[in-house]
Amino acid sequence: ELKNVLPLACGMEYLHTSSLILDDLPAQDNSDLRRGRPTLHKAVIDDDIPENLCEGRAQLAAVDLIAISMSVINHDLVKNGFSPECVNQVVTEISLSMHDLCIGQMMDLRAAHMGMERKNELLDELDHIAWFKTGKAIEIVLITPAILAMSFSSSLSSSVNVQSINLNSIRELGRLMGILFQMRDDLLDVEGENIGKPAALDVKNNTVT
Amino acid sequence: ELKNVLPLACGMEYLHTSSLILDDLPAQDNSDLRRGRPTLHKAVIDDDIPENLCEGRAQLAAVDLIAISMSVINHDLVKNGFSPECVNQVVTEISLSMHDLCIGQMMDLRAAHMGMERKNELLDELDHIAWFKTGKAIEIVLITPAILAMSFSSSLSSSVNVQSINLNSIRELGRLMGILFQMRDDLLDVEGENIGKPAALDVKNNTVT
Repeated sequence: ELKNVLPLACGMEYLHTSSLILDDLPAQDNSDLRRGRPTLHKAVIDDDIPENLCEGRAQLAAVDLIAISMSVINHDLVKNGFSPECVNQVVTEISLSMHDLCIGQMMDLRAAHMGMERKNELLDELDHIAWFKTGKAIEIVLITPAILAMSFSSSLSSSVNVQSINLNSIRELGRLMGILFQMRDDLLDVEGENIGKPAALDVKNNTVT
Repeated sequence: ELKNVLPLACGMEYLHTSSLILDDLPAQDNSDLRRGRPTLHKAVIDDDIPENLCEGRAQLAAVDLIAISMSVINHDLVKNGFSPECVNQVVTEISLSMHDLCIGQMMDLRAAHMGMERKNELLDELDHIAWFKTGKAIEIVLITPAILAMSFSSSLSSSVNVQSINLNSIRELGRLMGILFQMRDDLLDVEGENIGKPAALDVKNNTVT
């Protein structure tokens, strides 16, 4: 049943939200707006903490979302009948992907502060950063359901040979979608209106993506 | 063999280091020193990034250590012969523990900024925060090797019945050790010398632990 995969979908959404909260922090991309609303470190969503606690709370929320995501994916997928083997493989893929996202964000920060110039010969580096910052995130939402599907199919001895899914093709699809997404995001940053976040932030921050 | 458990020990050390980096951030306990040396967001450990990047790098390092820890524990414990079932259980315990640590740190921040007064009737709340901030971290390093030992013992049909380990007794031991540790830490904060971190930081920050 499709709803048995829900823990994976929820876990991914938690991780994605966590990465957005982290990216927007003052020490990262320093963005005040996300989806047209104040970012979490800016927002006072209730009256029981003062404004100077919002950044600390945002940091803890980002880490907590990672923890909750790991818990949901690990525990609930097994509860829903997926084998510990394939859940183990899913969690390993996710943790490697998180690692790459951190590397991508660090490359982006470093390039911005090094005053990297926007020349054509840097297109390869731009692609590389887009691959780590965005491609890996897209890859992981394609790869992990494929792993679950393969495990499910093999346990049913289904006539459809989902085993033959080529994970490497899926990885390549993720990489290319990541570059496309980042190109669109960068064009909107310069030329877009009403995109729900501050425009020209990358130019202001001198980040390459 | 004892060395088969090393991925768990390394993973725990990564998580612990991650939690210290996070705790020391300006928006958390705002500490400039740890173990007698500058905290990561203060330190310029090489010359290739400017000082204003150090906080962003520290945040990314903390998240990356969580990712690497998950990867090592998930992948390498299975590679070393532990069953995916018990590794799955270990990762679930760790993620719940991380979740509780975030809650504990948030309670501590909130109590500090609410101007909570240090009265005797607050001892229960202090115990509660110490349990979440420290007890859970001690619990997890006791519980997870016990889970691995139980799985190993059952696979060997060993005459020593490690299955009978009562996980709840271990949890209670962790809780009490956490309170003791936090009491010692708080006393050193007020009265200690040369403890490798700024003294009286809790008084300055008005945090309860």
